[in-house]
Amino acid sequence: MGVVSPVDRDRAPKQDRSRATRQRLLEAAVACLAERGWAGSTVSVVAERAGVSRGAAQHHFPTREDLFTAAVEYVAEERSLALRALFPQGAAGAGHVDRRAVVSALVDLYTGPLFRAALHLWVAASNEEQLRSRVTELEARVGRETHRIAVELLGADESAPGVRETVQGLLDMARGLGLANLLTDDAPRRDRVVTQWAALLEQNLGR
Amino acid sequence: MGVVSPVDRDRAPKQDRSRATRQRLLEAAVACLAERGWAGSTVSVVAERAGVSRGAAQHHFPTREDLFTAAVEYVAEERSLALRALFPQGAAGAGHVDRRAVVSALVDLYTGPLFRAALHLWVAASNEEQLRSRVTELEARVGRETHRIAVELLGADESAPGVRETVQGLLDMARGLGLANLLTDDAPRRDRVVTQWAALLEQNLGR
Repeated sequence: MGVVSPVDRDRAPKQDRSRATRQRLLEAAVACLAERGWAGSTVSVVAERAGVSRGAAQHHFPTREDLFTAAVEYVAEERSLALRALFPQGAAGAGHVDRRAVVSALVDLYTGPLFRAALHLWVAASNEEQLRSRVTELEARVGRETHRIAVELLGADESAPGVRETVQGLLDMARGLGLANLLTDDAPRRDRVVTQWAALLEQNLGR
Repeated sequence: MGVVSPVDRDRAPKQDRSRATRQRLLEAAVACLAERGWAGSTVSVVAERAGVSRGAAQHHFPTREDLFTAAVEYVAEERSLALRALFPQGAAGAGHVDRRAVVSALVDLYTGPLFRAALHLWVAASNEEQLRSRVTELEARVGRETHRIAVELLGADESAPGVRETVQGLLDMARGLGLANLLTDDAPRRDRVVTQWAALLEQNLGR
């Protein structure tokens, strides 16, 4: 007790290395899924991209489904953290919530490589039984967490009738804007839509 | 002049048959894309499903890209016609526009097999150069047409500031709701979101 044995001293850096390897694999998996789609994304391809042996990759993730659902979940969590960090004061107590900025940041969650990777995973899951239940469960979890963050950052009072559905519709709109950005750069149009709907929300959410 | 030659008499039914074959191929292509995704959708598979020889299929559609972009376009046009037929009076002159019903019908365009097929095509196009430009062009055309119909059916006055973006955001939401319906039946939640957003529109579009 209180004495670090040589075994423990060895273990700590080893755990760090293992965590770093896991993280490299997850990031490589998301990039791979976004660029090549499900059909082009295998554990071997990801391991090579991450500079990790195939054996080590399979030690962390025994199956392809394990790797890719974990990857999308990992990045979704990172994005949630980044989103909260962007508005550290949240809406609590703050006199004024900049809803335009919050809506814009929420919509940004659905453009870029993470959304692209998640989209490939959803579409693949719609045709592949072994993926379907896992992705459905993951999607429900990520969706609930995103909703919670949105309510908090917008300073929305969900006890008022309709507010819950207003926020849900906003996140559906964000997802649709992500889809519209898949093939072309839709940023200028997206900015105008965000400005307008942030104004509508402002009227509707009050304060 | 005025006399139907034997050749013309033969040609008419032949054109009809050719049109019917084309239509069968297009419908089979959409079903195939929705069920199997791009990777599982080839001209041969579609021809077999449609009960058409591979040669006849290739006579109508020389390449896989021709077949599938034509298929998504064809069904999108059919859906636009059906949508207009649902509200034959439009908003013109009508004292009251049932915006809840219009929003609901617009959202319905993005659930079901057509959206699923279009989604597979978009996702495939994001990774396949030969599809990308065609699907981008198709998507822009279908998007403009859907926007036009939405403005008309909602009785929205686009000369008023923000109205154009309000309608665009609504269609983005509809697309996002389609995506949310990909893996699970999202109908009960969707109904509540549609009700709430229709109410927001009602406040904003006036009349």
